Amino acid sequence: MDKLEHIGIAVKNLEKSNRLFTKLLGKPPYKSEDVPLEGVRTSFFDVGGVKIELLEAIRADSPIAKFIEKRGEGLHHLAFAVDPIEDKMKELSAEGFHLLSDQPKVGADNKMIVFLHPKATNHVLVELCTERLIGK
Amino acid sequence: MDKLEHIGIAVKNLEKSNRLFTKLLGKPPYKSEDVPLEGVRTSFFDVGGVKIELLEAIRADSPIAKFIEKRGEGLHHLAFAVDPIEDKMKELSAEGFHLLSDQPKVGADNKMIVFLHPKATNHVLVELCTERLIGK
Repeated sequence: MDKLEHIGIAVKNLEKSNRLFTKLLGKPPYKSEDVPLEGVRTSFFDVGGVKIELLEAIRADSPIAKFIEKRGEGLHHLAFAVDPIEDKMKELSAEGFHLLSDQPKVGADNKMIVFLHPKATNHVLVELCTERLIGK
Repeated sequence: MDKLEHIGIAVKNLEKSNRLFTKLLGKPPYKSEDVPLEGVRTSFFDVGGVKIELLEAIRADSPIAKFIEKRGEGLHHLAFAVDPIEDKMKELSAEGFHLLSDQPKVGADNKMIVFLHPKATNHVLVELCTERLIGK
């Protein structure tokens, strides 16, 4: 993996958690964004070059709604920047990791993303992400 | 917070998880260390300047043993580098965060550390850490 791109945290109420993390991290989120495909509203904080992404479900069938129902709020996933993402997907599949989709899909923050199944990663949900090219 | 210093991941078997994360991250851990005070054995991976710390319990009363019993393996804590740690502790206490100890204590990787109670941080266990000075 090239670098840790962001850490995802599942929250029940984004507005309330934005206030909390602003106090905790000493600065406000630098942007907020909806990701319709994942059914989430997100906000991003920067801490010395690493992003912290808060995620609130905006649909009952969002993976974040299901996660919170099962485990409560808290740390949700680690996202690693990889380039090209297709090569890393092939490499990790060959190593026995299980990808949750065959193709990268559109994520927040202008990224193409894919998740690895947490059963093969010590129950850590791992996202691979790469910059989304216009027209891709 | 100055920077994200590391991410802690609770694992049942450090040796097995070292092999798993070596495959996932594409490089082996650069060190391993016991922290008797916390009852844990740790290993550290570097991903572009951010550390990933795997933690295995070496005592039944270790916080990691209790965490795994309750929630299973997975993401455990986020550690932020702060300096001086005492000032940040006072500041966060005044903001309503609850510190799990009054004084920083000895952690892994030559650090002085203190945790914030996760009930006031969206159930994210947050560690503050600073370099340990000789004789301190």
